[in-house]
Amino acid sequence: MSGSGLGLVATRRAVVFTPDDPLVLASGATLGPVEVAYETYGDLAPGRDNVVVLCHALTGDAHAAGHHGDPARRGWWDSLVGPGRAVDTDRFFVVCANLLGGCQGTTGPQSTDPATGKPYGPDFPPLAMTDLVTVHRRLLDHLGIERVHAVVGGSLGGMQALQWAVDSPEQVDRAVVVAASSRLSAQNIAFSSVAREAIMRDPDFAGGRYAGTGRSPAVGLAVARMMAHITYVSEESLERKFGRRRTSDGPPQLATDFEVEAYLDHQGRVFLERFDALTYLYLSRVMDYFDPFPEGPAGDGALARVAGGTTRFLALSFDTDWRFPTSHSRRIHEQLSAAGVPCEHQELASPWGHDSFLLQPPGYHDRVRTFLEQDRA
Amino acid sequence: MSGSGLGLVATRRAVVFTPDDPLVLASGATLGPVEVAYETYGDLAPGRDNVVVLCHALTGDAHAAGHHGDPARRGWWDSLVGPGRAVDTDRFFVVCANLLGGCQGTTGPQSTDPATGKPYGPDFPPLAMTDLVTVHRRLLDHLGIERVHAVVGGSLGGMQALQWAVDSPEQVDRAVVVAASSRLSAQNIAFSSVAREAIMRDPDFAGGRYAGTGRSPAVGLAVARMMAHITYVSEESLERKFGRRRTSDGPPQLATDFEVEAYLDHQGRVFLERFDALTYLYLSRVMDYFDPFPEGPAGDGALARVAGGTTRFLALSFDTDWRFPTSHSRRIHEQLSAAGVPCEHQELASPWGHDSFLLQPPGYHDRVRTFLEQDRA
Repeated sequence: MSGSGLGLVATRRAVVFTPDDPLVLASGATLGPVEVAYETYGDLAPGRDNVVVLCHALTGDAHAAGHHGDPARRGWWDSLVGPGRAVDTDRFFVVCANLLGGCQGTTGPQSTDPATGKPYGPDFPPLAMTDLVTVHRRLLDHLGIERVHAVVGGSLGGMQALQWAVDSPEQVDRAVVVAASSRLSAQNIAFSSVAREAIMRDPDFAGGRYAGTGRSPAVGLAVARMMAHITYVSEESLERKFGRRRTSDGPPQLATDFEVEAYLDHQGRVFLERFDALTYLYLSRVMDYFDPFPEGPAGDGALARVAGGTTRFLALSFDTDWRFPTSHSRRIHEQLSAAGVPCEHQELASPWGHDSFLLQPPGYHDRVRTFLEQDRA
Repeated sequence: MSGSGLGLVATRRAVVFTPDDPLVLASGATLGPVEVAYETYGDLAPGRDNVVVLCHALTGDAHAAGHHGDPARRGWWDSLVGPGRAVDTDRFFVVCANLLGGCQGTTGPQSTDPATGKPYGPDFPPLAMTDLVTVHRRLLDHLGIERVHAVVGGSLGGMQALQWAVDSPEQVDRAVVVAASSRLSAQNIAFSSVAREAIMRDPDFAGGRYAGTGRSPAVGLAVARMMAHITYVSEESLERKFGRRRTSDGPPQLATDFEVEAYLDHQGRVFLERFDALTYLYLSRVMDYFDPFPEGPAGDGALARVAGGTTRFLALSFDTDWRFPTSHSRRIHEQLSAAGVPCEHQELASPWGHDSFLLQPPGYHDRVRTFLEQDRA
């Protein structure tokens, strides 16, 4: 990380679909109004040709960089994005928006259903990856942006970058797909499934109609987060950070005692303050079903669309990531390359597992910087 | 598996400690009476020199081989144990007992506390690995057995085999330690911790006093089991078995849809029928704290005791086991070998992950058979 980073930034909102001009989802259902929470960093060039879109992961939000008043608490990708950083806000106009189905300002399950005047809850329609991208493409329309220099995303964010190239192959020049997948494995789905079961079986989930009850599936959501968190970090990093150290010298006990337990407990607790259980269900499900290049005509068609477009790809993976191991990125690289799409792939060494995409393992940010600057006019 | 296996077998019970002659636990607490549920297969030789003790894993029980009436439903290690099998009941007198703290016949948290006439519940004392072994050694006394040809165990069972050699170094001639660990990693503890949190945060856990309430922490226990189950199988085996196949052709949904989800749901459900939540807490905690050879004088002393005894070791691991990877078995091998204890180690190829110890990957059973027959009089 170089320089002191962005200063004060603000989250803005835009209504991008209305009841009269609703979003038509992949399922056929319609949704309107759709409001989007977003942030921008840097200045849009007169030629409107310096736009970089950041796509957030499952539990991220629009606040990628800078701060909201406390300079010590900065956006989730602040190390990557800012003046002089890999995504250089002195050069690029950077846009980051909260996902459809989210709980951080963009329309989601806790938004008011205009048909009832109450939160949608479990009546919110199922979403597909393409719906998430459609909403963000509409936000760009709203901002007067036609072309995108690069879409950059990690994990679920990388999956959106892939979908963007399928849906709008001539809009995006570069896609940086970090620690992502074009097809979740059975084990991936299994972990997400158990997290969802922990939420949905919590009595306070109340079939998803917990809004207004004064209760929420806090036990289930915390357990889901604690379990997921284990899969986001490497065995090595947990071992280095905590080993078998205990928080006390007392006798063995059933309750929290090892430091790693206290850490997970903390992870679960702080997650409850910022996240909604239904958003967790809806967005994790989008990942499970995502399969843009299935074997057969549909997959061939999608790949042909990407090949006919303008997007070149950089797929990055981390050697200790066991949630989306390098095999997933290699698969993306092989699928795209076989279809004639320009795609580079690199596995980076990093001790931190899947979470590496949020951190700064050696070579990572430089690789992104170089890719964004390649062939730049 | 050769032959047709053992026929009808029965679980027996023995009171091995009484209120007047209580078990003194490692914690200093006392427990009595202590009853043990056990099974035996084969015949005790006149010289009482053909005893093989089987140690079960976290959720196992005394019913290792044969059947209880339905020949299609056989004990958990039936493939390994029986006439002509690797643990050959034509030659060995095999003993398998349910663990202290268990819920399948041996005294545990749901047993009656003689002080109150009610189940112990959370007042059951914390246990250490040595306590589990002490109870089974007392069972051998009860059966008139002094020496043991071999102790054989997988996972938590293998950890007991290690503890046995520490506690009673001249009683055991051979220890087969399969897919086990002499020190859980931070990640191991983390997974167990989240499983316990799922149980303890379930409102129906009621602080552990759920006996007699007509309720039990079924949600938490099922979630714990589903999560743990993912860690018992390899990514490869889940992929081969389920891939991304769905149970329906319908539209995407939040509820169970992929086959792997239905499988995990089933695993959670059947577990509730046979297991108790407090036993899960107590025994998983025994594993977390187990550290028989810590660095320093205590560890050196324990290793010296084993080295001064009669036990030779076989440590086996499986290449796709990521719950207790080969590094754990290699560590056992290195610790014992450095102390001059005879120990062989082999990593076996197997597609099934940690659960391989219950199955028959190539070479596994033969290796156990050969080790049990080495230097046999």
